Amino acid sequence: MTDVVSIDPRTGHAVEVVAPETTPEEVRRLCDQAAAAVPALAAIGRAGRAGLLRRLADALDARREEIVAVADRETALGATRLGGELTRTCYQLRLFAEVLDEGSYVEATIDHPGDTPMGSRPDLRRMLVPLGPVAVFGASNFPLAFSVSGGDTASALAAGCPVVVKAHGSHPRTSQLCFEVMSEALRRHAAPEGTLALVHGVQAGVVLVAHPAIRAVGFTGSSTGGQALVEIINRRPDPIPFYGELSSLNPVIVTPTAAGERAAELGAGLVGSYTMGAGQFCTKPGLIFVPSGADGDQVVDTMAAAIAASAPQVLLNERIAASYREATSRLAAEPGVETISSGPAASGQGFEAVPLLLATTAKGMPAAVTEECFGPVSVVVRYDGEDDLLEVLATLPASLTTTLQVGADDAELPAAVSAALESRTGRFVYNGYPTGVAVSWAQHHGGPWPSTNTAHTSVGTTAVRRFLRPVAWHGAPESVLPEELRDANPGIPRLIDGVLVLPAH
Amino acid sequence: MTDVVSIDPRTGHAVEVVAPETTPEEVRRLCDQAAAAVPALAAIGRAGRAGLLRRLADALDARREEIVAVADRETALGATRLGGELTRTCYQLRLFAEVLDEGSYVEATIDHPGDTPMGSRPDLRRMLVPLGPVAVFGASNFPLAFSVSGGDTASALAAGCPVVVKAHGSHPRTSQLCFEVMSEALRRHAAPEGTLALVHGVQAGVVLVAHPAIRAVGFTGSSTGGQALVEIINRRPDPIPFYGELSSLNPVIVTPTAAGERAAELGAGLVGSYTMGAGQFCTKPGLIFVPSGADGDQVVDTMAAAIAASAPQVLLNERIAASYREATSRLAAEPGVETISSGPAASGQGFEAVPLLLATTAKGMPAAVTEECFGPVSVVVRYDGEDDLLEVLATLPASLTTTLQVGADDAELPAAVSAALESRTGRFVYNGYPTGVAVSWAQHHGGPWPSTNTAHTSVGTTAVRRFLRPVAWHGAPESVLPEELRDANPGIPRLIDGVLVLPAH
Repeated sequence: MTDVVSIDPRTGHAVEVVAPETTPEEVRRLCDQAAAAVPALAAIGRAGRAGLLRRLADALDARREEIVAVADRETALGATRLGGELTRTCYQLRLFAEVLDEGSYVEATIDHPGDTPMGSRPDLRRMLVPLGPVAVFGASNFPLAFSVSGGDTASALAAGCPVVVKAHGSHPRTSQLCFEVMSEALRRHAAPEGTLALVHGVQAGVVLVAHPAIRAVGFTGSSTGGQALVEIINRRPDPIPFYGELSSLNPVIVTPTAAGERAAELGAGLVGSYTMGAGQFCTKPGLIFVPSGADGDQVVDTMAAAIAASAPQVLLNERIAASYREATSRLAAEPGVETISSGPAASGQGFEAVPLLLATTAKGMPAAVTEECFGPVSVVVRYDGEDDLLEVLATLPASLTTTLQVGADDAELPAAVSAALESRTGRFVYNGYPTGVAVSWAQHHGGPWPSTNTAHTSVGTTAVRRFLRPVAWHGAPESVLPEELRDANPGIPRLIDGVLVLPAH
Repeated sequence: MTDVVSIDPRTGHAVEVVAPETTPEEVRRLCDQAAAAVPALAAIGRAGRAGLLRRLADALDARREEIVAVADRETALGATRLGGELTRTCYQLRLFAEVLDEGSYVEATIDHPGDTPMGSRPDLRRMLVPLGPVAVFGASNFPLAFSVSGGDTASALAAGCPVVVKAHGSHPRTSQLCFEVMSEALRRHAAPEGTLALVHGVQAGVVLVAHPAIRAVGFTGSSTGGQALVEIINRRPDPIPFYGELSSLNPVIVTPTAAGERAAELGAGLVGSYTMGAGQFCTKPGLIFVPSGADGDQVVDTMAAAIAASAPQVLLNERIAASYREATSRLAAEPGVETISSGPAASGQGFEAVPLLLATTAKGMPAAVTEECFGPVSVVVRYDGEDDLLEVLATLPASLTTTLQVGADDAELPAAVSAALESRTGRFVYNGYPTGVAVSWAQHHGGPWPSTNTAHTSVGTTAVRRFLRPVAWHGAPESVLPEELRDANPGIPRLIDGVLVLPAH
């Protein structure tokens, strides 16, 4: 049996054995237990699940210091960032409790019997119900917010789906600790047994995705990893939805007016954004379009100076560090690409990476720069006017985000850029940065392929919908209807005979 | 070049050449034209598209007599059924116009800037936008309601997606006629060129699904046909959503009380439902659970008499007729299955089928009866009490529908059946029949695999959601926002800072 080892990315050394890899038998037992928990998790209702989510947030908050310390030791992301990430994680759990309280997410719809041009219509009622047990794959880059305690888990539990998490191999101790804190809170508050489980190891992930009880998979990671899981799903007798957040370039367009108005501020902000979390954000700006000319030069000079003054950064694991070195060497050697600036040489310790700023031109941009590269590197693309810009934008793949840095009176160019990229963008950011994705009702974190593999979002309140499916009842007696569809409104918005009706308060 | 021929199923003879198969070059030209129509179809807005849908309904209504006659000649479904289907088709187009007017389907969501426990939140706005051109595959069994003029086309156009339909080979003339009627209406009302196109031939369908402009596929048909399209999609560099309605057994459970209360009525109703449209409904009840004993005997005897008195029926095409003969012979020869009743021998003309009633027992039910069999056959399964019933229900695949025929005071058994099948049912029908799917706000036509391949619905107003994707705007100036997300409410329900707000009327 292989052990799961926790490694310190600052030194590259193994620190401790966390657990043995979960055996296939154990994975199957946990999946069966999750399946058995489905009716009980439905039976406690929206209010019951909202209570559990709040208790999970309280429990994680209460162990903040320990969780942040362990996560920092395993990821080198720093206590400040990880403290913020835990705050976000707890907020997310509490926001999904609000989603449950508000109740419109079930889309309760009632059509009373009546005559239609098609003839008489029966009593029809529809709402969304839980899909069943969900497999969640923790992401390397957010050990708290996209991992055991993260958004996929929170939204699946809110939906009423038991969760089996596959711990990411980069932070097994953090995963184990969060799981223990959450499990204890669930036990203390009498959650159904099987509500949450954790497995370790690549083979455990394979068994998990193939298990008949699992009804959906939530995944944040590489296209390669996602593709491997999709292939397992395609071999199931019953394919299940795979919600994959895969790869994103996140172009930033600085307009000439914006460069003229705030070159220095933009240069500093852009470097801050692309080196945040050592450049390991799904929303890292990987391609930055800057106008040619003096204002654009000032943007780039500020960026170059910030990179030259930066310290080496520590990446999450050996594989990411090796591919950063490999990909950046390859990029820098591309015809038409030059290295504008780099941080000081690495010390050779652990999984260090040297921050880099590369540059090319819209006319000479090689296709290689349109591939996502994890880590503290970005490529500036200098353009000569609107036509030059629009021509190169037409060659970009779809992204989670497109950012526009515009001037006070910019109108035409932002409109043209929006139109050019609307079909290839999940979120437009104006005069801000794509990193740091606020959790809220209107947030969205998804986009056309390869950003995600479906039109889903994994951040924001509608993330819950990935784990729900519609069921309709035709002429059903009140006794078999869910509370949300009975005549007496349990206090949620409902669509009745085609008219949205709010609850009386 | 191969010609597309229209065949009369009543004789089996070719009647006319409808068109040549569409060439790959022409398919590509039509897809490019559809892509070019996207911005214009968005620009006419919800009101513009609602107008077009109503004009399409008017145009089809105006040519009712001709459309019904052509469809009857090609499908042998009969003028009454086809007249009803056209009414449903027009109603469906008009209902999606209402969906556009009502506007909540875009899920307009606005979060104003403010402080949160995560720090300050930017202005965030999200709504659903059209996915882009959609390929629709006409179904053999609904030449109007699930074909060129059908629900997939109506919901995609409502969403704002141009549509390229692949005509079903069983009714090319009906497809061509509906397309011409609709195209003329679109032209007359100045719809963007490329809003609707039609292609003929298997190869054209393959080219269509592989074309980069196509953003989603709507399909109603066999698992085999669906699987072939999925394989083409999986070979695309950018996989696209495939919304497939594939296969469904649609179990009916007659409780002992229901059998005691209305055996004769149930027997007649069940035969009417499973022979409707020559048994070629996706919701045909293929497996009917009847209690053992005298009341159940009376249900079955009534069914047997109705089948013995029935006339032969005409199936849609040669393939369906051949597989009906093959599958029913195989089923009837299964150990434990007996043929209870059959209609008179077929005349040998065209694609005739002999209606059949087969029977087995819960304890002796062979797995072969859980496979969908298109055509006028159903299998009665006799059961001895609740335990016997629940045990056999546990072996069923998921279906679009589960029907419960219950008695006035039945409570326990319906609850147990619902609980047993909830995870494998898209719609529960109480004291009704699964065939004849009313189009309405609360309707749902989908279900867990193999009913459909995702949690989608292809009937009812939320069918529109298959062709939409979320986009968020962060700090965007009002000028680039869609009308639905600007501060002034254009008259639709919106979620503002987590609170659903109705428009002022």
